[in-house]
Amino acid sequence: MKTLPESIQKAIDAFGSLPGIGPKTAQRLAFYLLRRDKKYSEDIGQAIMGLKKNINICAECQNISDSGRCAICSDASRDRSIICVVEEPLDILAFEKSGYFKGLYHVLQGSISPVDGIGPDDLKIKELLERIGKDSEIKEIILATNPTTEGEATAMYIHRLIYPLGINITRIARGIPFGGDIEYADEVTLNKSLEGRKAY
Amino acid sequence: MKTLPESIQKAIDAFGSLPGIGPKTAQRLAFYLLRRDKKYSEDIGQAIMGLKKNINICAECQNISDSGRCAICSDASRDRSIICVVEEPLDILAFEKSGYFKGLYHVLQGSISPVDGIGPDDLKIKELLERIGKDSEIKEIILATNPTTEGEATAMYIHRLIYPLGINITRIARGIPFGGDIEYADEVTLNKSLEGRKAY
Repeated sequence: MKTLPESIQKAIDAFGSLPGIGPKTAQRLAFYLLRRDKKYSEDIGQAIMGLKKNINICAECQNISDSGRCAICSDASRDRSIICVVEEPLDILAFEKSGYFKGLYHVLQGSISPVDGIGPDDLKIKELLERIGKDSEIKEIILATNPTTEGEATAMYIHRLIYPLGINITRIARGIPFGGDIEYADEVTLNKSLEGRKAY
Repeated sequence: MKTLPESIQKAIDAFGSLPGIGPKTAQRLAFYLLRRDKKYSEDIGQAIMGLKKNINICAECQNISDSGRCAICSDASRDRSIICVVEEPLDILAFEKSGYFKGLYHVLQGSISPVDGIGPDDLKIKELLERIGKDSEIKEIILATNPTTEGEATAMYIHRLIYPLGINITRIARGIPFGGDIEYADEVTLNKSLEGRKAY
């Protein structure tokens, strides 16, 4: 039996279709909006509807951007000799938050994953090679794909392509995360933490 | 530094303003929508914007409804002699899902909570009394407010008001939930489970 008004059921279904939001959370969110004033849910709906408006891809680094060239690539204060290659725009956000890296980025927009039918040609690898070919300023490529099977395969693939060009290629360190517990670390992480050890 | 396009930041802020959705989840949701087609995020935004459209309060039970009278109150097959008093519309949904109860409901739209400045006059208690006064068919009132301090206070308050009218008043059973573990049950629940014990 239909016990909920249609507009509420629609909102619950909309929330519930998002990843990680179950039916109970979807209900809770819809009823939370119902208790708030009308303008609040209109603002949220508007923001979600407008999400894809004015979204461009930066011609240089393939990151999402308001305009043709993203804010980082346009920033004259960044070190243009070093490029950090990441899988997703969110990875850039994480690096920017940590604040250590001052170079430029390159977004692959995914990682090589034969299971999902994603090959090298589906990623922005060609654009990376073109960028390196055009810009003689570039001295180092940091491969910052995720330390997963897909990310490692992608890093390895790109390494093989760039190696002949004589540019410095590095891979981010893999090891025990800060605040982590050696007791609970998996074998691969432990091995990587030993492999990557440094003089103290 | 602004690293995200404004429209995406807006969507992240919108998601993040919802209860239980942290900044990381908000980011994840916005980028999920970004990967999906435009129509998908438009449909979700539309559903959220339209949430409060055509929402009425049922004149009889105070539940939210599409029209003047809700689907349950309009249903001729329901037992009109018994009214289950709940705090929120979501409580009705839970009871309806379990399917045991075939009577009518009354939504208080909250519970007495002096800390939050919610007194008896802010709830739909007056409407409940009017309903009982008008309808001589009503034989039993089930107080199904939550077994919390506020819910118990609200039940006690309503009980005191209805008691002189000579109608049967009951309170939902409180005890160990199905699938629960006595070992982990709190003291109040354990006491209630003993207090409410029945001949086997």
